[in-house]
Amino acid sequence: MLEFLLAIMYINNVYNTKDGGACVYNRFIELIEEKKYQELKKMLMDMNEADVAEALEKIDDEAIRIKIFRLLPKDLSAEVFSYFHTNTQKNIIETFSEKELTKLIEESYFDDVIDLIEEMPASVTAKIIKSVDKEKRKLINQFLNYPEDSAGSLMTIEYIDLKEDMFIKEAIEYIKELDLNDENINICYVTDAKRILKGVVPLHKLLLLSDRVKIGNIMEEEDISINTNETGENCANIFKKYDIVTAPVVDNENRLVGIITIDDIIDVIEQENTEDIQMLAGITPSDKGYLESSVVNLAKNRIVWLLVLMISATLSGMIIREYESVLQSVVILVAFLPMLMGTGGNSGSQASTLVIRGLALEDIKTVDVIKVIWKELRVGLLVGGVLAAANFARILFFEKVQMKVATVVCLTLFFTVVIAKILGGILPIIAKKLKLDPAIMAAPLISTMSDVMVLMIYLNIAKLLLGI
Amino acid sequence: MLEFLLAIMYINNVYNTKDGGACVYNRFIELIEEKKYQELKKMLMDMNEADVAEALEKIDDEAIRIKIFRLLPKDLSAEVFSYFHTNTQKNIIETFSEKELTKLIEESYFDDVIDLIEEMPASVTAKIIKSVDKEKRKLINQFLNYPEDSAGSLMTIEYIDLKEDMFIKEAIEYIKELDLNDENINICYVTDAKRILKGVVPLHKLLLLSDRVKIGNIMEEEDISINTNETGENCANIFKKYDIVTAPVVDNENRLVGIITIDDIIDVIEQENTEDIQMLAGITPSDKGYLESSVVNLAKNRIVWLLVLMISATLSGMIIREYESVLQSVVILVAFLPMLMGTGGNSGSQASTLVIRGLALEDIKTVDVIKVIWKELRVGLLVGGVLAAANFARILFFEKVQMKVATVVCLTLFFTVVIAKILGGILPIIAKKLKLDPAIMAAPLISTMSDVMVLMIYLNIAKLLLGI
Repeated sequence: MLEFLLAIMYINNVYNTKDGGACVYNRFIELIEEKKYQELKKMLMDMNEADVAEALEKIDDEAIRIKIFRLLPKDLSAEVFSYFHTNTQKNIIETFSEKELTKLIEESYFDDVIDLIEEMPASVTAKIIKSVDKEKRKLINQFLNYPEDSAGSLMTIEYIDLKEDMFIKEAIEYIKELDLNDENINICYVTDAKRILKGVVPLHKLLLLSDRVKIGNIMEEEDISINTNETGENCANIFKKYDIVTAPVVDNENRLVGIITIDDIIDVIEQENTEDIQMLAGITPSDKGYLESSVVNLAKNRIVWLLVLMISATLSGMIIREYESVLQSVVILVAFLPMLMGTGGNSGSQASTLVIRGLALEDIKTVDVIKVIWKELRVGLLVGGVLAAANFARILFFEKVQMKVATVVCLTLFFTVVIAKILGGILPIIAKKLKLDPAIMAAPLISTMSDVMVLMIYLNIAKLLLGI
Repeated sequence: MLEFLLAIMYINNVYNTKDGGACVYNRFIELIEEKKYQELKKMLMDMNEADVAEALEKIDDEAIRIKIFRLLPKDLSAEVFSYFHTNTQKNIIETFSEKELTKLIEESYFDDVIDLIEEMPASVTAKIIKSVDKEKRKLINQFLNYPEDSAGSLMTIEYIDLKEDMFIKEAIEYIKELDLNDENINICYVTDAKRILKGVVPLHKLLLLSDRVKIGNIMEEEDISINTNETGENCANIFKKYDIVTAPVVDNENRLVGIITIDDIIDVIEQENTEDIQMLAGITPSDKGYLESSVVNLAKNRIVWLLVLMISATLSGMIIREYESVLQSVVILVAFLPMLMGTGGNSGSQASTLVIRGLALEDIKTVDVIKVIWKELRVGLLVGGVLAAANFARILFFEKVQMKVATVVCLTLFFTVVIAKILGGILPIIAKKLKLDPAIMAAPLISTMSDVMVLMIYLNIAKLLLGI
């Protein structure tokens, strides 16, 4: 135990002395304290916005952090702001005057503003809404009506919309006026008078063709468009399937209302993966970071499944009590229970995890259920055979038990592995078919089911072979 | 069991009748059989390439599939080809003449060609290399020298490189000549005579400024560049941190050698996630799809951990044998073993899974170890307390056991949950510090450790309180 604590202290120590990132924010504080504002400002402007945000978040003294943040030029400060954690954003907004806030919001991308409003407490939201003009307020309200995690809530309104009858020269003038700041915009969308999406023109085409060509003559058909109500997960699947970096979002009347860019899709993908992984471990999914979450929330997200599984495990207890006589006469059988239950649970959850992941990535479809069963049957026979043989050899050589007991243990092991693999393969597919999340059929539930199965097989084989 | 089989048949059935995608490839086959090639060609050209690939892969008869594939115009066929699974790609290359292959490779993106070569068996690789010209062959060999999954192997060579002294007009002429087909290219890289990266110019700037401006005057500093040896995982982290869609790749002398685009990064992210999830279930990671993997390979990837864990579980068996007398005198204690071991394992793996995920997303750093312990201690006390109380009530009301036995069970439950949570929180961090993959500290290993712990606590408390 002592060694363990020493190891932890060591970890802590090494890290602190080695942390190169520490220098940056300490330098910020030094410069502020020495009132060398110009030098600090230059330093901030030379850094990447994401790095500035990261360094500022390491400063514990909030007053100093905000003082430094105020030194940033307007456009840069909006960028840095978008990289902050929710809590830091909240604190900054609370200390900002309405005028400062108006400027910050003006310089921010519209989808970042929507995200911000969705995450802030009501008082802060009210302050933000108050700080914007009437037109923007209307737009914000419209966006807040899209369901959470839908294409509507993911999209941004900063895009280039052209008309078919524009000449390239006009289009370029129009784009200049739009004054979009995003260097990543590379596709122009062509709409008609009713704002129906007619086609797309890659930006580089405007560059390479003559000024006197009409947009309508060079536009291409856009075969991918996403409805505002599409789920974030489906949006991500579309981006992955078609290898695209932007997609137009249309309303039910097929009018272009925004675009989704791939950076937001990456966030969706990582969030989906985090949720899947949490489900796999029997945790109610939450998109809050571990360190940000409160103890009560963490406990709440974990306790539901633990309770369900604890109560399900009663079934195992009931089986044991029914066969109490078997165990009492051959107590040695109990010694193999942890190994059998462990191996059964692990075998089943290996299969279920692979199938759950396959379903999530759409490598496996529900129609493949027969293929999965056939595959798991063969894998199970192979793995079960090897494990049973290895275990038989181990018991004979290293443990002093009767050959008969060894046979009971290894037969149980074999059947357990085969059945657990098949169940692990099928159950996620059945869950999906029943419109449940396949991930509920993950390790914890499969292990609990497998425990029951192990006991049934084990105690019955024991009764039969040992003649109890 | 019968119901179960019926359920599976039902799943199979419903899916087959509902599958809308089926119509497309059946229509392909019809048109081919009716020799309506022009109509088929038109249909193919109206579809998105990813959809064409998906439909073609559903056709079982390979000869027909290749016949349809040959109908595609050159540029389209290269695109469709890039969406095929490895096996389909192999079969097509094998039936292609050298001339056909040369055209296919010419129209493909260079990074796709490299991926292809890396995945094909040696005979097919030789055929590909033979089909390209000398210059490309040299380049391919150079790329194949980059370590697998490194930035070098992820990058593509299709990018725009400008010089500082070019006027915008010249730059545009130069880009026209390059004739890059990728509509997603939106950043031009500026290099000097030694090909050292000097800066970047967003493509849209060329559009919006006067022809007589020099590139050197409008280029911006590029603060992000990736070394060819950087791992794929680090590349993904850079893209996520800085919200970028392309990044320049430089060699050790800082010369620009290629660019990485975000579509390849998404593949890296999904692959990393799949590997993490496989590790979490005690499976040796593999990037092959489930249905594509052979039974032997699937078995091999699973058996290592099962064997290790099976043998580790012997420790549990040894403890039980040492306390055989305790169990023999109070056999009812065995009935609670599955519940206690299950809850301990689940509690521990909930904690370890959250920490492993947090480490992967860099939400948690190794320096946070004390914070994690403190958090898990409190979560453990809360969850352990609730579970122990719930269980005590359940045992008293529903099971006919002595109060003393109930106390032993619930005390064990409480301590188990608390310790398992703390261990689950710490072990991944220690693994990371020891330069191991934190994911080895996932559910299977934590559960096996937790089993040992449960037995030690359980049997000792029983000995003490029941006075055996």
